[in-house]
Amino acid sequence: MFSHRIEGLRPSPIRAILSVIDRPGMISFAGGLPATESLPEWSGSVSREILQYGPSEGEPALRAVVSAQLRRLGIDAPVERVMILSGSQQGIDLAAKLFVDPGTPVAVEFPTYLAAVQVLRFSGARFVDLASGEARGARLAYAVPTFANPTGSCMSDADRGALATSCLANGTVLFEDDPYREFAYDACDRTPVAARMTGGSWIYQGSFSKTFAPGLRLGFLAASEDLFERLLMLKQAVDLHSSRLSQHIVHEAVTGPDWEDRLDRLTAFYRDRRDTFEGALQRHFSGLAEWETPPGGLFYWLRLRTPIDTRELLGEALERNVAFMPGEEFYPDRPQSGTMRLNFSHAGAEEVERGLATLAGAVASHS
Amino acid sequence: MFSHRIEGLRPSPIRAILSVIDRPGMISFAGGLPATESLPEWSGSVSREILQYGPSEGEPALRAVVSAQLRRLGIDAPVERVMILSGSQQGIDLAAKLFVDPGTPVAVEFPTYLAAVQVLRFSGARFVDLASGEARGARLAYAVPTFANPTGSCMSDADRGALATSCLANGTVLFEDDPYREFAYDACDRTPVAARMTGGSWIYQGSFSKTFAPGLRLGFLAASEDLFERLLMLKQAVDLHSSRLSQHIVHEAVTGPDWEDRLDRLTAFYRDRRDTFEGALQRHFSGLAEWETPPGGLFYWLRLRTPIDTRELLGEALERNVAFMPGEEFYPDRPQSGTMRLNFSHAGAEEVERGLATLAGAVASHS
Repeated sequence: MFSHRIEGLRPSPIRAILSVIDRPGMISFAGGLPATESLPEWSGSVSREILQYGPSEGEPALRAVVSAQLRRLGIDAPVERVMILSGSQQGIDLAAKLFVDPGTPVAVEFPTYLAAVQVLRFSGARFVDLASGEARGARLAYAVPTFANPTGSCMSDADRGALATSCLANGTVLFEDDPYREFAYDACDRTPVAARMTGGSWIYQGSFSKTFAPGLRLGFLAASEDLFERLLMLKQAVDLHSSRLSQHIVHEAVTGPDWEDRLDRLTAFYRDRRDTFEGALQRHFSGLAEWETPPGGLFYWLRLRTPIDTRELLGEALERNVAFMPGEEFYPDRPQSGTMRLNFSHAGAEEVERGLATLAGAVASHS
Repeated sequence: MFSHRIEGLRPSPIRAILSVIDRPGMISFAGGLPATESLPEWSGSVSREILQYGPSEGEPALRAVVSAQLRRLGIDAPVERVMILSGSQQGIDLAAKLFVDPGTPVAVEFPTYLAAVQVLRFSGARFVDLASGEARGARLAYAVPTFANPTGSCMSDADRGALATSCLANGTVLFEDDPYREFAYDACDRTPVAARMTGGSWIYQGSFSKTFAPGLRLGFLAASEDLFERLLMLKQAVDLHSSRLSQHIVHEAVTGPDWEDRLDRLTAFYRDRRDTFEGALQRHFSGLAEWETPPGGLFYWLRLRTPIDTRELLGEALERNVAFMPGEEFYPDRPQSGTMRLNFSHAGAEEVERGLATLAGAVASHS
């Protein structure tokens, strides 16, 4: 009864975790959730016009703001090639539709964002490691160069250059996903890889979920001229356009006098959370795991000294009211055991201390 | 470079028309736009919690309201099998992903909603006529039984029964799209076909775009037990969840004391518009075309006495500042020439008079 593609569809582990995450007393290091206290409140009124059908590309005023911002980053993104998305997850769906047939080679980082793997796999992608020679034959290269999900790492200047060069040389389409770039705690090169694409085909996307509010479901993309119109047709076919009210509110915020201050405050807030998390990790995990301190973003990536299957560990942890993401889930194939993604932006200091102590206890019992 | 599917992607004629529709002086009978003066205004405030990530299924309170409403219509739709969509266009995308491979037979009305054709074709659907014997072999049957788009017609009681029986007998999945059901101007049977599905597989979907506001992009679906979880996984993969703010506002509206009155007022308002349109049609088109008065919905469907290609007529009409939808676009194949879809909900009386006079002039010059 179902399409062949549906065989590749698996329930996301995020969903399984989300279903228990609201349980009273649960400490969650699982999602990439902003701290709720960092979210804005909003009040205002909306005119009738904004509630009418609107353009598939998005509101012109918001597209203009995004265009200006991307151009400051060195990306060739005139307003005509900027599109507002219903969250940047949507951009991945559009790209999968545009490029991926059953068996199409797609280069990704190993590990990489699991919901990208899910969508690309559904279209039939055959995954190759972005860091390997195999990547030369890829039709599409999906990467989160700046504060990667799940590892938190920031791609070096040399690697960024090499990625752009490889895409250009091999006719690979670059798909740069950049939701975390504003949250830089330590110095590192954040020049978008898309800014180095002198020619070639590319998509660059970002999100308002982390800088403003996830519940509005808004992101944006820019793309090279050969891709934009097709992406727009696909966007129209999936939801006609994104919520105009959400776009109105985000436009109000990003053009308001407080926006830059808000980003600074948020970054300082999350840097504090990272530092708190680092301290607690050193107290509880120094004998059990290795990690690099992430220079930005929302995640720590732990490699346990004993390579236990952390999908099994998750069950035990949830029983003790601690949630995290098993690292195995972020590998398109050949998962590396004994890896964990820990989000440090959502839980407060006391919860972090208690949650990491509990988690370390569960890990130690397997060592 | 592109996926094979992309060859089936064509620019929507809606987009081409939308690009000129804001031209000053343009009278539009083209879109299915609500009258802007019928849209609500909204003011209020939103708490932080509603701006956090939320469940893929949608807000529990809104799902409960939808569930209760569908049950009153006789549909087996407990809250666990109700999902909030980012507009009902999204439901078509999800169903296409779930059921359609290249060559999969899909039964639709000839003519039918053009953006459904667009999405289903992109997945590789082979279209068969719902009214023909071929429909027995279809995996999926997509229909708008109540005030169809584009014809405005209401499926008879006998035809509704026959459709349900055929789906049940042949193992065809019923996909009932029902965005216009509230706008009934004359008596007709509106019992959902999904309410007659005693067993079998089905999806029923509706929209808040017509009853409340399109700009918020919200719809909903209910589905049989064998389909719901898979649809939910697909929904999560495309946008995680729909805007929580939109859901909050719609929930406030549909549970408010004014909701039933609003629907009554809207229906009266659109009935008036239909009657005005009918009068103007009789004045200007009685020698040129045939039509049935639509008992509900938003559209008139004209069959011209001279079967000219109305796609060519459109160019002439747009030059004279009148927009409409060529009927050819609503046929998956074998388009019937000399057909036009005219929306009667958007333009006011004076514009209708002037626009139909102009359009009739353009038609007459070809006769």
